[in-house]
Amino acid sequence: MLCCCFFMLHFVCRSSCENVKFEPVLTIDTMNPTVKKVEYAVRGPIVQRAVELERELSEGMKKPFAEVIKANIGDAHAMGQQPITFFRQVLALCSYPELLNDSTFPEDAKSRAHRILQSCGGNSMGSYSASQGIDSVRQDVARYIERRDGGVPCDPDDIYLTTGASDGIVTMLKLLVCGEGAARTGVMISIPQYPLYSAALAELGAVQINYYLNEETCWSLDIGELQRALDEARQYCNPRALCIINPGNPTGQVQSRECIEDVIRFAAKERLFLMADEVYQDNVYAEGCQFHSFKKVLFEMGPEYSNTVELASFHSTSKCYMGECGFRGGYMEIINMDDEVKAQLTKLVSVRLCPPVPGQALMDLVVNPPQPGEPSYDNFIKERTATLSALAQKAKLTEQVLNTVQGISCNPVQGAMYSFPRITIPEKAIKEATDKGQQPDMFYCMKMLEETGICLVPGSGFGQKDGTYHFRMTILPPNDKLQILLNKVKEFHQRFTQQYS
Amino acid sequence: MLCCCFFMLHFVCRSSCENVKFEPVLTIDTMNPTVKKVEYAVRGPIVQRAVELERELSEGMKKPFAEVIKANIGDAHAMGQQPITFFRQVLALCSYPELLNDSTFPEDAKSRAHRILQSCGGNSMGSYSASQGIDSVRQDVARYIERRDGGVPCDPDDIYLTTGASDGIVTMLKLLVCGEGAARTGVMISIPQYPLYSAALAELGAVQINYYLNEETCWSLDIGELQRALDEARQYCNPRALCIINPGNPTGQVQSRECIEDVIRFAAKERLFLMADEVYQDNVYAEGCQFHSFKKVLFEMGPEYSNTVELASFHSTSKCYMGECGFRGGYMEIINMDDEVKAQLTKLVSVRLCPPVPGQALMDLVVNPPQPGEPSYDNFIKERTATLSALAQKAKLTEQVLNTVQGISCNPVQGAMYSFPRITIPEKAIKEATDKGQQPDMFYCMKMLEETGICLVPGSGFGQKDGTYHFRMTILPPNDKLQILLNKVKEFHQRFTQQYS
Repeated sequence: MLCCCFFMLHFVCRSSCENVKFEPVLTIDTMNPTVKKVEYAVRGPIVQRAVELERELSEGMKKPFAEVIKANIGDAHAMGQQPITFFRQVLALCSYPELLNDSTFPEDAKSRAHRILQSCGGNSMGSYSASQGIDSVRQDVARYIERRDGGVPCDPDDIYLTTGASDGIVTMLKLLVCGEGAARTGVMISIPQYPLYSAALAELGAVQINYYLNEETCWSLDIGELQRALDEARQYCNPRALCIINPGNPTGQVQSRECIEDVIRFAAKERLFLMADEVYQDNVYAEGCQFHSFKKVLFEMGPEYSNTVELASFHSTSKCYMGECGFRGGYMEIINMDDEVKAQLTKLVSVRLCPPVPGQALMDLVVNPPQPGEPSYDNFIKERTATLSALAQKAKLTEQVLNTVQGISCNPVQGAMYSFPRITIPEKAIKEATDKGQQPDMFYCMKMLEETGICLVPGSGFGQKDGTYHFRMTILPPNDKLQILLNKVKEFHQRFTQQYS
Repeated sequence: MLCCCFFMLHFVCRSSCENVKFEPVLTIDTMNPTVKKVEYAVRGPIVQRAVELERELSEGMKKPFAEVIKANIGDAHAMGQQPITFFRQVLALCSYPELLNDSTFPEDAKSRAHRILQSCGGNSMGSYSASQGIDSVRQDVARYIERRDGGVPCDPDDIYLTTGASDGIVTMLKLLVCGEGAARTGVMISIPQYPLYSAALAELGAVQINYYLNEETCWSLDIGELQRALDEARQYCNPRALCIINPGNPTGQVQSRECIEDVIRFAAKERLFLMADEVYQDNVYAEGCQFHSFKKVLFEMGPEYSNTVELASFHSTSKCYMGECGFRGGYMEIINMDDEVKAQLTKLVSVRLCPPVPGQALMDLVVNPPQPGEPSYDNFIKERTATLSALAQKAKLTEQVLNTVQGISCNPVQGAMYSFPRITIPEKAIKEATDKGQQPDMFYCMKMLEETGICLVPGSGFGQKDGTYHFRMTILPPNDKLQILLNKVKEFHQRFTQQYS
């Protein structure tokens, strides 16, 4: 009873004393200024509004649409993609090992679960693992990389398991940042980029060096542009690293082997630490395109490069055919890292104890899936193929439909999970947006959300050439839904253009 | 074939050209200097050596012991503690929902799994959740806190799910850090402390302000000492936050209600943001001791405090009776945080997308376990009680046995999972350690590891008063093993003392 009075008093006082100013210790003016500079458009204001709209719909409010479609983020399962049965069977077995006695589970799932559990302290996924990740998982990752790269050797000691690829990328950037003023570390990132990079650089207080991908040639990377960006940046910072996303996010291009060789030569010549974000390595759709890992190309260029160029490459359980974002699994491989720095890296990751063990288990399954002759093999191949060929179809469909719209122009989605079409925004709309203090493509996407329920991310969240506008849209919705979505985008664009012409 | 030649060339060249100096971009001299300052003793050199010893044992090398016992880290399952059956059943159901048709699973486990899956995009744990965490889980956390705190209201919007408690703690510290020189943010932490705090402060470049717990009065916290530490620190930094670990790690004390009130008054008077690390809230063993949450005490002190003191408190799935460290589940509750800062917090956590969803699911089960009348209730209570009472026994046993050893003096383990006894190290040993450039208690623990296979953490890794030495030892090994371990520690200490006397 006494307690209740206290709480009532608390709330009464709180509302009745509102004009008495309570000045908190932590305010927007006294908080970490680098955190304020962080931006992350993929989950920005558009997505917050989408969540509000969903709530309003569920509360029965009338809207010009029946559901919100979140095409803002590469979240495959949320868009209806089914998990790989084998992976989930093994995870269930690892979670509740009593099931190892259940005869309905296939033997290969059981033996995989058994092996994972044997590598866990007390045979439980509830134990911490080594901070670098479970030994046997790192061994499996190394063997996977060797197979993928046609025999290029891989040392499990160079593998660090991570909490999704984001964790690895931020950790690597953290190691690289030092110096002040003109000596401050600069990091080269593509524009358009995935905004994790800009967010991490802002938080670390590093200098972001933009190099522009060439939209006219299917978002290709041009060494001349790298050189321009680097030369300019050398006047005000110390460029030390070059980040590449291949296949591209948000741009969907797949780099040619020649291009990768050029980038490696450039990094060697200019003494840049290479970071290769390869989380979409299985998401390659366009004919004639093929994924080449930076590691493989580096080693095939011979010792002049393979002994001297420092490389960190990143992979994840979140994309490709598995789409297991929620488990936050991933790994990074580091090549030619100085031994003392590596010891510092190992120490740094130990502070957070370990990546989530279920994510590590899942990463293990991704790099060591069912093999020919094993009971789950046929079904695994069937499921994987179905997902990847559906994605390939949807990539094609997206490009085709968007290119039928006057004022939208979309490069082929060669890989990854997104289209990043260029949109023409009428002058009157640009003016109205500017008057509201909004980016024109933010204005466009917000209007599309309110009118159609479709949630996209404006190009300004990824960066784009001045005066050009884009949006990023995932290709993940199921085929029929994607068709509807594309038609709605088409109609919206036509309406919008008419309204502001 | 061509490939093979390349690789051979790579290795031949690498070894034959060793005297040609390859200067990497990233070296110990050019890496982030704040990372170099990070230390984390719980996984430091002693543990690395323990891992090596394990490998050597498995390779058949002769040692004076048959196995390495890792009593360095609160890793319950690795020490044989069994997971709660209900939790693991639900996790298996969520991982592989086909099992919802399996009649051997209890109905309450199924309905819990069903509810969790319904809150996941596409009904899959493979989807990203909201960055703040799954809505329904945050609601369950809020209800748990209200029950725990005798009805003090809790708003789910104040709950952020995290990747273990460490993640939340680092995130909060990150928000608080600003200023340069004498205006740099200072953060008060207890000594001895859990080294996550010192590591995070070092990485963020914040100023660590030490306040000493009083070993003579069972590691109690004295407000006079807080005042001393604060007054001194104000001369060289801007103290903004006060961190409390209750029940204590590594020191095992449980704070009295009066002490918590005093701390809150102190924080209010001195304008400090309070951070309460309460991950051991269910680990209270000593008679007369009880866990009081800072939130509850704050609200019961009335609006003068409950409306003005900013508080973040932290919990985790890793400790208490569940010990599910590997899932990296946790939450934080924030009270009286400025709205603009809260928006910045939400933005900041969105960059990492979301905490691992299996860890979120587990957190949900911890705050919403089986209820009376549900089929799993009796077994849940039985398992929880067995674990907690075994821990209470082991806490007592540890204290008793250690206090029989001359030169070891151990405070009662009132709560948490560790003993932190004081050890007398002979002058000759101190000298030998100092000559080797080692802390004397590191020298002691390393010697114990080599001779007995027991892996402890030296007190210097947590901080201690100058001239005093300690080690941290978990109370987690099973009873019979713990007994053996304690006897070995006893014998070692006697031998060591004799050797250096």
